[in-house]
Amino acid sequence: MLVLLTDFGTTDPFVGIMKGAALRKDPGLRIVDLTHGIPPQDVAQAAFVLRASLPYFPKDALFVTVVDPGVGTGRRILYAETKRHRFLAPDNGILGLAFQDEAPIRLVEVTNAEYFLKPVSRTFHGRDIFAPVAAALCAGLNPQQLGPPATLETVAPSPFPEPYRDRKGNWHGQIVYVDHFGNLITNLWQAHLNLKHNEGVEVLVKGKKLKGLARSYHEGPPGPMVLLNSFNTVEIAVSRGSAARVLRAKKGEEVTLRCPMSSS
Amino acid sequence: MLVLLTDFGTTDPFVGIMKGAALRKDPGLRIVDLTHGIPPQDVAQAAFVLRASLPYFPKDALFVTVVDPGVGTGRRILYAETKRHRFLAPDNGILGLAFQDEAPIRLVEVTNAEYFLKPVSRTFHGRDIFAPVAAALCAGLNPQQLGPPATLETVAPSPFPEPYRDRKGNWHGQIVYVDHFGNLITNLWQAHLNLKHNEGVEVLVKGKKLKGLARSYHEGPPGPMVLLNSFNTVEIAVSRGSAARVLRAKKGEEVTLRCPMSSS
Amino acid sequence: MLVLLTDFGTTDPFVGIMKGAALRKDPGLRIVDLTHGIPPQDVAQAAFVLRASLPYFPKDALFVTVVDPGVGTGRRILYAETKRHRFLAPDNGILGLAFQDEAPIRLVEVTNAEYFLKPVSRTFHGRDIFAPVAAALCAGLNPQQLGPPATLETVAPSPFPEPYRDRKGNWHGQIVYVDHFGNLITNLWQAHLNLKHNEGVEVLVKGKKLKGLARSYHEGPPGPMVLLNSFNTVEIAVSRGSAARVLRAKKGEEVTLRCPMSSS
Repeated sequence: MLVLLTDFGTTDPFVGIMKGAALRKDPGLRIVDLTHGIPPQDVAQAAFVLRASLPYFPKDALFVTVVDPGVGTGRRILYAETKRHRFLAPDNGILGLAFQDEAPIRLVEVTNAEYFLKPVSRTFHGRDIFAPVAAALCAGLNPQQLGPPATLETVAPSPFPEPYRDRKGNWHGQIVYVDHFGNLITNLWQAHLNLKHNEGVEVLVKGKKLKGLARSYHEGPPGPMVLLNSFNTVEIAVSRGSAARVLRAKKGEEVTLRCPMSSS
Repeated sequence: MLVLLTDFGTTDPFVGIMKGAALRKDPGLRIVDLTHGIPPQDVAQAAFVLRASLPYFPKDALFVTVVDPGVGTGRRILYAETKRHRFLAPDNGILGLAFQDEAPIRLVEVTNAEYFLKPVSRTFHGRDIFAPVAAALCAGLNPQQLGPPATLETVAPSPFPEPYRDRKGNWHGQIVYVDHFGNLITNLWQAHLNLKHNEGVEVLVKGKKLKGLARSYHEGPPGPMVLLNSFNTVEIAVSRGSAARVLRAKKGEEVTLRCPMSSS
Repeated sequence: MLVLLTDFGTTDPFVGIMKGAALRKDPGLRIVDLTHGIPPQDVAQAAFVLRASLPYFPKDALFVTVVDPGVGTGRRILYAETKRHRFLAPDNGILGLAFQDEAPIRLVEVTNAEYFLKPVSRTFHGRDIFAPVAAALCAGLNPQQLGPPATLETVAPSPFPEPYRDRKGNWHGQIVYVDHFGNLITNLWQAHLNLKHNEGVEVLVKGKKLKGLARSYHEGPPGPMVLLNSFNTVEIAVSRGSAARVLRAKKGEEVTLRCPMSSS
């Protein structure tokens, strides 16, 4: 199974063409769209979406992640394997968060042009390299055939912003994702923060202080509330409304978290 | 076959994650997207789209309809069967219009956590309940295993606005859907109104009086025209243009219909 | 394999309903979305997208192209075959560019209502004619059964704007497509222009003169650059930015190309 994650959008034919190029190699291939709505060239957001989605896909699914501002330059293309999944991606940090949860047990630099569509364009490697190589892998190609091994040390680091803790024990993060419902998703992860209890949590965002953790979108106070979302990150939401609109908040906005747990 | 109808949009990974969660249970499952473009939490619009789409899908297709403003609260999840189709839905009226055309012959309250993904989040039941339960049903699970039977009397009523008839015999409805082309779709159904003839029909919308029924988008007068659309409802359209733009009309706008037939 | 190209968008249920109607005839059918993001009723853009995409799909794929402003009028529906692909389309020029690359070896006018869904609406032939006929073809129906043969001379010509050459040897084209990244794609094709060399090429657009051809999005000058894109047409782009925004350029804008090669 091939899972596609790109910034191609769905108005252009690019995603359809990639599927065509993969199906030309293997007409029986199963292809699932994770999303094509990553903002253009936003590698950090793609890294976040990939990590949040991974646990829910079948073992051995091949994730083809084409958010690739460096297409046509010398940036490498990598094949990676963890215990649970497989990846084909430009070497630009897009796999960085995924690797925090699942360490790669194999890394290969994709250089063998035998599996590429020819001629390879300089602007659409999704069609000319990623799609046919992915189809070949799904058809059973040994990844060793793709090129030389690579080492984790040489892989581009994650561009995803990490939260930090100040001397008072407060965590400083930011809004990293605004979803379709206007929910504000932060880079403050549950595991990170050891958040277990409702009491005493305070979140500062856009000059507002929000207290306590709601259990669901409908059990919080009127107005903006804080909860742990289904990705296990701290999220600011408004019941039956848009927190982005109510708070006039965008991606990148600073979020501070005070929490009794975090000081222990 | 599993048919998905949600308000998740396509920019976020939510639909992809639901598919992953279903395919993890059954990698051979067939999944079709009806649409994910329902406006956030608009149960009435989802009910309309479901009813309009149902007749065109294969017998025994399982419709998984996740427009679910009550996620994480006590609202029930229902499995329903009619003679032709199967449904998995929150109990919020989303199935109300479908049941007007196809009476349910089985209703089950979905409570058996054995088929859920664990832990069940309080914000993403699409991933944690609907997807794995749907996959289990498609794989042959007996719906009795899902939980206790439910009765139609206890099911939430349709939130879809019904037209009414005044003492002069005129029907009063509203625009319930504005499609991508700017066509204005009303809740005045053909069957409802016994519309058969072109002559004498008058529609009032936004202070304009439109006369007669066009047979197609290109056989009407210049400017806004009235026709019976492919869903068998009264629609206001503009040939090669957008009625929404020309009339500056939105969802919810009142529409009055005078028709000789309707007074008989 | 059935490949869908429409202007239906993805917020409405129209594409899902078409798939349902096809799958009702053949539940095992493979369906691929090329794109549904063609601007409403823009036959020329659909013709461009179809031509650009065709070479990457498997042999014998059936392209169902429903951009159909004439639905419900007397316009014909055509089935066409080339050496490599098959097509089902309204006779409105949408196949014109595809036929420039692949001459049709069979043309049939689709008139046999036996394969239509009944009753046929006057506004949604995608559901009532295209989908069930496509499914029947994929299931092995002999195209002769669809209706009488048609001849190429009677087929509607391509509405796609053709570039022309002035007496000084300059080519005058236009922007025909603005993609999701803001890249400006022109109707100046590589084959057309015999462009081979980087040197001496000059492009005039929006009062700006751009010199030389970049090799990739990242090897050009800062600001707008010219390159040959993956469709082999002249494109104006901005590295990690949007040429549409930087140049405030839209579809239809004139583009002039001066090139030493073009004068030989």
